[in-house]
Amino acid sequence: MNKIKEFEEIIGYKFLNIRLLETALTHSSYANEKRKNSVCNERLEFLGDSVLSLVTSRYLFENYKNLPEGELTKARAQIVCERSLFLCAQNIELGNFIMLGKGEEMTGGRTRPSILADAFEALIAAIYLDSGLDRAREWLLSQLYDTIQLSVSGKSFKDYKTMLQETVQASGETDINYALTGQSGPDHKKVFTVEVLIGGKVYGSGEGSSKKNAEQNAAKSALERFSREK
Amino acid sequence: MNKIKEFEEIIGYKFLNIRLLETALTHSSYANEKRKNSVCNERLEFLGDSVLSLVTSRYLFENYKNLPEGELTKARAQIVCERSLFLCAQNIELGNFIMLGKGEEMTGGRTRPSILADAFEALIAAIYLDSGLDRAREWLLSQLYDTIQLSVSGKSFKDYKTMLQETVQASGETDINYALTGQSGPDHKKVFTVEVLIGGKVYGSGEGSSKKNAEQNAAKSALERFSREK
Repeated sequence: MNKIKEFEEIIGYKFLNIRLLETALTHSSYANEKRKNSVCNERLEFLGDSVLSLVTSRYLFENYKNLPEGELTKARAQIVCERSLFLCAQNIELGNFIMLGKGEEMTGGRTRPSILADAFEALIAAIYLDSGLDRAREWLLSQLYDTIQLSVSGKSFKDYKTMLQETVQASGETDINYALTGQSGPDHKKVFTVEVLIGGKVYGSGEGSSKKNAEQNAAKSALERFSREK
Repeated sequence: MNKIKEFEEIIGYKFLNIRLLETALTHSSYANEKRKNSVCNERLEFLGDSVLSLVTSRYLFENYKNLPEGELTKARAQIVCERSLFLCAQNIELGNFIMLGKGEEMTGGRTRPSILADAFEALIAAIYLDSGLDRAREWLLSQLYDTIQLSVSGKSFKDYKTMLQETVQASGETDINYALTGQSGPDHKKVFTVEVLIGGKVYGSGEGSSKKNAEQNAAKSALERFSREK
């Protein structure tokens, strides 16, 4: 219960119905282990996704009156994506509060972008159900402010390579290298494999249809492992 | 102006700010011809898409408490799609009220599913901006009622072949045939071409990765032409 209070302080929102918050923080792996009376956050995530979309759309629609529909759609897609939600989740230290099953816990679920991004969406829905759209919008826009500014200014916000670099440097390490370790498939359908080495040690690998994509995926996997082990 | 009033009666909603409705009914082809002071419905469509998603998600979330996230997502996708919105647009005779440029008018834009579905989304946003989410939700749910029931009961709502059949039969004609007229591409990437004949006359054709998909696309194109010429 103290953990719940601590989290409410970090996010700057106090729940009327604390069950909503508990559900938002319950990953399916935890609910599956406990079975009885334990509800996971997946249905909330379904709802939160739409709340996020409407809040973002209305904000862009009202504040960027000269942007045509195509630009609005592009900006919204940059804001409403796993990478951006993962950053939002990190800002509120969501990984320290989510409830995971043992398997997920052991394989680094606490730092996995997809798990954290989904839980962030569930949290949006929990606040929406707890006190309505206006309050949820206000809270959400404060969380999304930086992301929105960047997406509209045309700059892409931080990608996984940048995030990895910042995380690694913050720990005192500076040596990050990307190595192309494989290349397969016919010319029109190549698959590239890239490994990330930090201080000479392999931290992750990723595949992609281009070297750039493979590097992003490798950085994502290295970010999970590095955050877990550091 | 009388047309606007007539439309308000059909949809059962009276606008406080009539400019919103006018914009929702203005296709880009019309705005492009008029230029000055004419704003098309594309930005409203962008916003309406998210309103539709939230209203649908919340309805499903609250009324189907036992459906898991995967089923909710499937039902939402069936409700929030061009085919379903096209039906909604037809129910309110949107095609008779939309303002089109000359080119679109001449090539059957008034019955084109994409144009009508987009305008329906713009109309949702217009009502949302005119009087808020609660009123927009109430209006929208009354329009979507049948679609939601069907999507949740697992039945797919009307596809284009069914819609074509009903439209054609209503005009007294009964003879509809689908003919496979082409097949190309390598085995793993075949493209099928199908023509629709009504009373022995070709009304449309479509391509697809399967015969079934090609028939659906052919029915869609025939539906446009048949509605235009009947």
